Amino acid sequence: MEIIRIPRIMQDTSDDYVLRGRKIGFVPTMGALHEGHLSLVRRAKQENDIIIVSIFVNPIQFGHSEDFYKYPRDIEGDNEKLQREEVDIIFMPEISSMYPEGFLTHVKVEKISERLCGAIRPDHFKGVATVVTKLFNIVKPDRAYFGQKDYQQTVVVNQVVKDLDMDVEIIVCPTIRERDGLAMSSRNAYLDKSQREASIVIYKCLIEASELIKSGIIDAGYIKKIMHERLLKEPAVSGIDYAGVYDHTTFNELSEINGDLLLAVAVKIGETRLIDNILINVKRKR
Amino acid sequence: MEIIRIPRIMQDTSDDYVLRGRKIGFVPTMGALHEGHLSLVRRAKQENDIIIVSIFVNPIQFGHSEDFYKYPRDIEGDNEKLQREEVDIIFMPEISSMYPEGFLTHVKVEKISERLCGAIRPDHFKGVATVVTKLFNIVKPDRAYFGQKDYQQTVVVNQVVKDLDMDVEIIVCPTIRERDGLAMSSRNAYLDKSQREASIVIYKCLIEASELIKSGIIDAGYIKKIMHERLLKEPAVSGIDYAGVYDHTTFNELSEINGDLLLAVAVKIGETRLIDNILINVKRKR
Repeated sequence: MEIIRIPRIMQDTSDDYVLRGRKIGFVPTMGALHEGHLSLVRRAKQENDIIIVSIFVNPIQFGHSEDFYKYPRDIEGDNEKLQREEVDIIFMPEISSMYPEGFLTHVKVEKISERLCGAIRPDHFKGVATVVTKLFNIVKPDRAYFGQKDYQQTVVVNQVVKDLDMDVEIIVCPTIRERDGLAMSSRNAYLDKSQREASIVIYKCLIEASELIKSGIIDAGYIKKIMHERLLKEPAVSGIDYAGVYDHTTFNELSEINGDLLLAVAVKIGETRLIDNILINVKRKR
Repeated sequence: MEIIRIPRIMQDTSDDYVLRGRKIGFVPTMGALHEGHLSLVRRAKQENDIIIVSIFVNPIQFGHSEDFYKYPRDIEGDNEKLQREEVDIIFMPEISSMYPEGFLTHVKVEKISERLCGAIRPDHFKGVATVVTKLFNIVKPDRAYFGQKDYQQTVVVNQVVKDLDMDVEIIVCPTIRERDGLAMSSRNAYLDKSQREASIVIYKCLIEASELIKSGIIDAGYIKKIMHERLLKEPAVSGIDYAGVYDHTTFNELSEINGDLLLAVAVKIGETRLIDNILINVKRKR
């Protein structure tokens, strides 16, 4: 396993693989790796010749008052885990080589970037779209792997790839959960014991909503109300950024349950912001 | 010479060249080709194995009240000229395949996009940065060729390539001029006979300014005043968008002449907007 820190060297290395016809599978991460990330690596290994994982806590996708500085970092643990998965290359650039002085360019996706997490974190998806574009241009992957836990992110990345004609296939893999249902996230490390116990309310709320929908309820406003009530009954939940039923492509809030739906939640547990979602399909006879 | 209209087919064709280690030289154009474009093609031929020229009048770089609909088109003439230059591929996409319904993504460069032409045409360079990113991702060139006549455009494109880590070398070639000094431009076709005669004032004004500078004048405000006077003395000049002495990287207006300078002019002759520039270097002893 090789560690590369310089974008130009990573690019030359990938050029070499491309010229030799090797397929590159890429897993972009912010480190503090958990089973969710490793499931992406394993999927990538099945489908490609060379596996590259990037570890880069991307400052421009954090707001000023957000957790960039305290975001969990565990370089040694990450290295060990990736070595065990027989990853070929870790790309670990410095901030100053990704955003040198005089950096002026951004990639922005309208509309879908402004809903849900984008409504709460205004420049978040601009930061994501920009760093993903840069990473794809440096790593030159054939396929890139993302987890469904960050569902809106996967939709934004797909849109960038399509709109800018990037020659990369985006593969979205299922959310990996703890035994009690909590979606794996590097930010779970922020939770103390009682918050950790309380946090299962997020997945429970999503499951209950999906069961209500399967039982025949078509009023999305009612589902949203039940979700909010369920979340607020948990004292550890200190705020709800959003919770409800959304169109799975536009992220517009729905009034009536029909077709492909996104059930999505973003809450604060103490100071920690956690998100989760499930996709369901409901066919109503009209 | 092959004509390709579908982005995906262009991309697959370029993939093939890349895999075979062939170097691709790319000249992006909006068609209505003149000797300026052809000089780029000839330079590209010297340095690459495969020459691809795109012809695409990019709607998103025109403002609502600008000349998108009347922009000169001459497909037959262009084809003939490029055949004569032994170009390998003309890439000529439809608007609907470059900007299909649901297109949402833009590439934007701060600061340098907002000066000079960008101050007059607010979304112009966002349109340029976006289409160039798309074209580079589709054509996958090793080198791309631009004319110095659109100097600010070359600086914006260089910034996008650098900031987004695109693996393309940008090569800027000298402005090609008519015998009387007028910079070649597809928009010169808009000029009637008397306007065409009057239009030489642009280059004359740039040359006179550079001679004043060489004669030792260091007050950039004075040079600007002389340039404006010179342009306004020509009755065919119906308006000045800008004319003066600028920093060649930031496009900030200078007060004192020193170092690398951009002398730049944008005027309207009747309804036709024309631009031109020259770069000069002045070493002052302090």
